[in-house]
Amino acid sequence: MSLTKAALQAGMLSRFHRSVGQVSLCAVAIRSPPAASTSGPRFSTAAPLKMNVPQPECLRKPLNVPSKLLMGPGPSNSPLRVHYAMMKPLLGHLHPEFTQIMDEVKEGLRYIFQTKTEVVCCVSGTGHAGMETTMCNLLEPGDKILIAQNGIWGERAADMARRHDADVRIIEKPGDTFTLEELDAALAQHKPAVLFMVQGESSTGVLQPLEGAGALCRKHGALLAVDCVASLGGVPFYMDAWDIDVVYTGTQKVISAPPSMAPIAFNDRAMTKVRTRKTPIRSFYSDMTWLANYWGCDGTPRKYHHTGPISAVYALREALAIVCEEGLESLWSRHEACAKKLHEGLGALGLEMYVSDPKKRTPTVSTIRVPEGVDWTRVTKYFMSNYLVEISGGLGPSAGKVWRVGLMGYNCTPENVDLVLRIMKRLLQMPQANPKSQRYRKNSH
Amino acid sequence: MSLTKAALQAGMLSRFHRSVGQVSLCAVAIRSPPAASTSGPRFSTAAPLKMNVPQPECLRKPLNVPSKLLMGPGPSNSPLRVHYAMMKPLLGHLHPEFTQIMDEVKEGLRYIFQTKTEVVCCVSGTGHAGMETTMCNLLEPGDKILIAQNGIWGERAADMARRHDADVRIIEKPGDTFTLEELDAALAQHKPAVLFMVQGESSTGVLQPLEGAGALCRKHGALLAVDCVASLGGVPFYMDAWDIDVVYTGTQKVISAPPSMAPIAFNDRAMTKVRTRKTPIRSFYSDMTWLANYWGCDGTPRKYHHTGPISAVYALREALAIVCEEGLESLWSRHEACAKKLHEGLGALGLEMYVSDPKKRTPTVSTIRVPEGVDWTRVTKYFMSNYLVEISGGLGPSAGKVWRVGLMGYNCTPENVDLVLRIMKRLLQMPQANPKSQRYRKNSH
Repeated sequence: MSLTKAALQAGMLSRFHRSVGQVSLCAVAIRSPPAASTSGPRFSTAAPLKMNVPQPECLRKPLNVPSKLLMGPGPSNSPLRVHYAMMKPLLGHLHPEFTQIMDEVKEGLRYIFQTKTEVVCCVSGTGHAGMETTMCNLLEPGDKILIAQNGIWGERAADMARRHDADVRIIEKPGDTFTLEELDAALAQHKPAVLFMVQGESSTGVLQPLEGAGALCRKHGALLAVDCVASLGGVPFYMDAWDIDVVYTGTQKVISAPPSMAPIAFNDRAMTKVRTRKTPIRSFYSDMTWLANYWGCDGTPRKYHHTGPISAVYALREALAIVCEEGLESLWSRHEACAKKLHEGLGALGLEMYVSDPKKRTPTVSTIRVPEGVDWTRVTKYFMSNYLVEISGGLGPSAGKVWRVGLMGYNCTPENVDLVLRIMKRLLQMPQANPKSQRYRKNSH
Repeated sequence: MSLTKAALQAGMLSRFHRSVGQVSLCAVAIRSPPAASTSGPRFSTAAPLKMNVPQPECLRKPLNVPSKLLMGPGPSNSPLRVHYAMMKPLLGHLHPEFTQIMDEVKEGLRYIFQTKTEVVCCVSGTGHAGMETTMCNLLEPGDKILIAQNGIWGERAADMARRHDADVRIIEKPGDTFTLEELDAALAQHKPAVLFMVQGESSTGVLQPLEGAGALCRKHGALLAVDCVASLGGVPFYMDAWDIDVVYTGTQKVISAPPSMAPIAFNDRAMTKVRTRKTPIRSFYSDMTWLANYWGCDGTPRKYHHTGPISAVYALREALAIVCEEGLESLWSRHEACAKKLHEGLGALGLEMYVSDPKKRTPTVSTIRVPEGVDWTRVTKYFMSNYLVEISGGLGPSAGKVWRVGLMGYNCTPENVDLVLRIMKRLLQMPQANPKSQRYRKNSH
């Protein structure tokens, strides 16, 4: 017989439960006034020190957040269902209802990564934390890593790998894709422990094909780690079928949850490398053996590792549910169709794409050449100040050369493409506001 | 004349603005149906691979989150105002409205840390990320760190420091506090570069006094780093007046925002150490020179470092506004009074505190001795299954020995203390459910 049943039979608990229950709800829902206290703080027998820093005035004002349409390279907007998830009350980070939500997130991630691998979880940090987790788990001092760099993310990966005392080798094709032949030759030449690639280079708008790279890595005895922060969900991706050993992404792009976590997967080959390291993983927080346990991926009972970002996990769960409801094939088609519509529309306006070959463009982030002599910031400011629409400038190798328009997840709709095209068209039609006119040229005021 | 004005005078933009504005709102608020697309995904000319992982069934069900009262060592519940902040639409991580919110968070943190130091910001990860950021910025290989360990957090800090190849020295007083004399002697003996202390040891319930430790560290040429995850806001803390060089906390304890970020401050002495390192900081994500820039603390324009957790920053801003509205003195008194009420009530029920000296207890997390022979899990289960109230078991050195009751921020009210006492009293009064009775003893079913 359960304790509760026994107590109920004793005829006391049911009344007590009701009255206590009411107090409980009341205490949660309503801020109680501070209790009267006649003594000073208990910490010291001396009187407390004088407050040298007063309450800041700025926090007396209401929180001010305008409603913008985020058509840059991310974050994109989140659906209301995702925001509502964060209204749900907090749970403990090891409560069974919460670990069940974590399990549901894992299933959603297995679907979007197309993998059956055990170790699928989230790092409790944004996309960059996924990159750092990849580097600090896979690399030991002196390990060789080959980075296929076609934009800023390769540069960042190289920076992180160097901090872990890895031997960093780089092949570079800014704004272009690598062929399998180039990868094969570089793998043969450098014999790295890890090859790092970026599927959707959001700084240049390049979509790197991945099919075949995994097989090459196995041939050359390397692990393949892929950044698909800016592409996952927008283009086909098959972790298992493509022999990808490590993949990570962010939550704020196609998945359309707020930025908060880095979904990540390590297959058995990658976990074997992690588990047979000679040196400790330099980060406790990002240690995949701990993370895999906390996320229930290693077949042993979950231990306390760190406190997960509860509300963010709720939001990701709901965003993944929306992805699963639509289905990946539909999501991929929608991104392809919207990007095609955008690129054709921009072409009709006389604007050129930074990546000239349409096959090499990621549909998630389109890079548009800034016409000669034009001050790109005036155009992005025009979008924002007149329409509360974000389009962005370049980053890294594309800084000052392009505008970047994101079409990701919730924001990837024909209506939003039309909106961007109509604003751009209006800019081009108005003599006062033509990006090619004097007003938009550099150094004119 | 502004561009907008010029365009408005051209008589075209105002009409266009309105119509575009409507489309924009519509596109944001309503999920559009996926665009029709007759072609396959663009990524490869071949047909897409077969989906090997289908949509998971579990994500078709609604998100299930019960409403619990979290009276464990954290997370604590968040006020509705904090949840509502996460309903606000997302902004870009460098938008001026967002960097203003970051600035407001900084001001709130300066108040709660009682510091005027420049470098006050948040690591985009939960409390443990604050500890790791402290270690990876302050320590270079071979650097000596002295850890004053009186619970699990000192153990964790030692683990992290070892991963950074530091020379770790430990002084131990499980469940007790260190005196200034003990600290002075240990500093003289080990001559560390850093002394690490924990103000509120949530695993043992110990409150470590800090006043005077900073002066000792300066005398011995060490930096003082303090973990106040489980204490900040609940007890007096004065970063500047107490000469503390580095401090970090979490958002989900007294501050009562969801777990998400680790507020952190490095004073000038600490930043000098960071900026004059001979070896690179091993983490890019947690590099304080980058974080200080992204948070606008270094006097130079913000550069893109990583994408901050936008919604979590909104939530923290609101939680800090609530703290500032109440004022630290009131907050400290409230915690002291509620803890006193709880401890007296438990004493009246015949239960003993783990930390016998009331002066050595942190009011935020109370540790209650599990009576001899009692299975502690049955009591925590009784609280949860009958009242949806969380109280926790021990952790680390206190595992199996104590129950932990949290009184933090929003949840620290006399009503909640009464609730916990009434449930505990009921347990003790009922022969069927008395923790001292056979039913609660180990190995009885």
